[in-house]
Amino acid sequence: MLINGKHYRTIWMKRNSIYIIDQRLLPHQFKLIKLKAIDQVCNAIKTMMIRGAGAIGAAGAYGFALSILNDPSKDISDLNANIKTNYNKLLMTRPTASDLKHGLDFILSKIKNLKDVNKIRQEAYKEAHNYSDWSANNCKMIGIHGEKLIQNNSRVLTHCNAGWLAFVDFGSALAPIYEAHNKGKNIFVYVDETRPRNQGSNLTAFELLQEKIPHFIIADNAAGFFMQRHKVDIVITGADRIAANGDAANKIGTYEKAVLAKENNIPFYIAAPSSTIDLGCKSGDDIPIEKRNPDEVTNIFGWTKDGKFDSVRTAPIESKAENPAFDITPAKYIKGIITEKGIIECNRNSLKQVFGKP
Amino acid sequence: MLINGKHYRTIWMKRNSIYIIDQRLLPHQFKLIKLKAIDQVCNAIKTMMIRGAGAIGAAGAYGFALSILNDPSKDISDLNANIKTNYNKLLMTRPTASDLKHGLDFILSKIKNLKDVNKIRQEAYKEAHNYSDWSANNCKMIGIHGEKLIQNNSRVLTHCNAGWLAFVDFGSALAPIYEAHNKGKNIFVYVDETRPRNQGSNLTAFELLQEKIPHFIIADNAAGFFMQRHKVDIVITGADRIAANGDAANKIGTYEKAVLAKENNIPFYIAAPSSTIDLGCKSGDDIPIEKRNPDEVTNIFGWTKDGKFDSVRTAPIESKAENPAFDITPAKYIKGIITEKGIIECNRNSLKQVFGKP
Repeated sequence: MLINGKHYRTIWMKRNSIYIIDQRLLPHQFKLIKLKAIDQVCNAIKTMMIRGAGAIGAAGAYGFALSILNDPSKDISDLNANIKTNYNKLLMTRPTASDLKHGLDFILSKIKNLKDVNKIRQEAYKEAHNYSDWSANNCKMIGIHGEKLIQNNSRVLTHCNAGWLAFVDFGSALAPIYEAHNKGKNIFVYVDETRPRNQGSNLTAFELLQEKIPHFIIADNAAGFFMQRHKVDIVITGADRIAANGDAANKIGTYEKAVLAKENNIPFYIAAPSSTIDLGCKSGDDIPIEKRNPDEVTNIFGWTKDGKFDSVRTAPIESKAENPAFDITPAKYIKGIITEKGIIECNRNSLKQVFGKP
Repeated sequence: MLINGKHYRTIWMKRNSIYIIDQRLLPHQFKLIKLKAIDQVCNAIKTMMIRGAGAIGAAGAYGFALSILNDPSKDISDLNANIKTNYNKLLMTRPTASDLKHGLDFILSKIKNLKDVNKIRQEAYKEAHNYSDWSANNCKMIGIHGEKLIQNNSRVLTHCNAGWLAFVDFGSALAPIYEAHNKGKNIFVYVDETRPRNQGSNLTAFELLQEKIPHFIIADNAAGFFMQRHKVDIVITGADRIAANGDAANKIGTYEKAVLAKENNIPFYIAAPSSTIDLGCKSGDDIPIEKRNPDEVTNIFGWTKDGKFDSVRTAPIESKAENPAFDITPAKYIKGIITEKGIIECNRNSLKQVFGKP
């Protein structure tokens, strides 16, 4: 997608270097980071320079390939021992991110039967690119399928950032919007600021601005107001994990917006690659909810008038906050799931039919 | 109510001085301001040193009395001309605040038939105190009626600040909580941070902390999560205006929380003195919604690590925000209205029966 008119992916690799956009600095600074060693990749994932399901999956695949490329082992058993160590090192950077494991396992599956150390290096490098292309292409397909849901002159509401910055390219929830925009449809987007980490204000607004798609940032509290006043035609968000019955875990607040959409007869869609669907997980009750640092609620991070990053505290020092990072939207509020394979009805049978292994 | 263990009202008057708490500095600094002239009072209201329906009403009454006390006129017609000017000057500080007019009209009604300039001064001073006491007492009664709704060990969710800082004392939505707490009931409060102006984090948390009532500040996005997980027993908010059919205007986000409460079978109550009920207003459709500065959404104000007030920007400079300050909660989501006259069912007939003039 575009930044300052130039095409970028969130992550790419060229010989022994991985390049990423430092997402912690957006929208205020655009800075590319070059990663030359696995420890730098681990640090980039841990500190959220790169974040978002698909982008982390690709960071895992590229980081894993980099560690293999950089490995000086001449002996296959030495290399295999290092591969095991590096796999675990990368996996531990975000232990709950299912796409990270997905990216690592993809590379592992392609090299596990090879016996030649140079061949392993070549394959790991090639397959990391393939993984990244596959991931980007899934999002492209989500855009193509989802675009059909967006009429000309639609007003779309989205929550958090499920745009291209969260993936390798195109995004999930924003992919249909980009596709519609590129087809010449006139689209307006309401961007929930998405407290407490403000990914809407920081990232989604940045993406839309760069793609010249008109939008308003709104307080999360105002989403219901605009729905009630018939200003929103469709709601699309991403998902972090979708259970077998269609219940979807996503950024805190998604459940609220889904309930309000239903109350106002506005279709609410989840857009996610099918790797997000976890048929081993019976329902939303089985999805653990990460609690994050309460300081995210009481201290707000941003760009000062002096052009620096800093945080300001809104609450009394002694007041405690509670900060669940995700919530579960029950399937009954979700009109459909936009995947790379098409738009699927959000229930156990449809999900099993399309994604169940025979 | 208590600050650092000492009893305060938000506003009081002693001879020719009005004292207020500078609410713009809370919760980070506690500072009293002394106002000696009407222009200082106007400035305090305009700049929101003092804010909240009931507190502004009292500021109007006291400010009006101060202007009359300070008036050197010896002649009744001179004094009356000045009274008219000062009435308008005060009214224009917040033209949409209905309580401001209420406070001014109360004083005017008490002095309009008097002919003696000294008597007018005495009466204005005395009646400003009476207005303030009447206003505080209404809130006290809201607490006494509303307390019956709060069981021991209840978890209450509230939005924005409808505590004593918004009134002269006790508050509206928080009054039942204080009453229950003072009766020895064990209460826990979920405080919506209330973006974009963060009155929950700034003011409600400050009040509860001072009264030693346990609470969590939560992102507005998390309110639905806690309701869904059966962590909330009752929701109580204030209101800025209640129409004849029971539709209630209140801080943006109130509508969202009311819909979520209904969806989760949690009773949602509005607490407000009956002066908030506007029988001349047929329904919520007739209540205009103030749009505030979009910077409130994109720039967040707070307390820096260096101990100063500053704001940080979360959004790209070029992104626009939309900032409706209030929303309308339709009567069907409101289980009842807690007033100084008791708890009223939220429909046209009940409201007319209790508050309609014969």
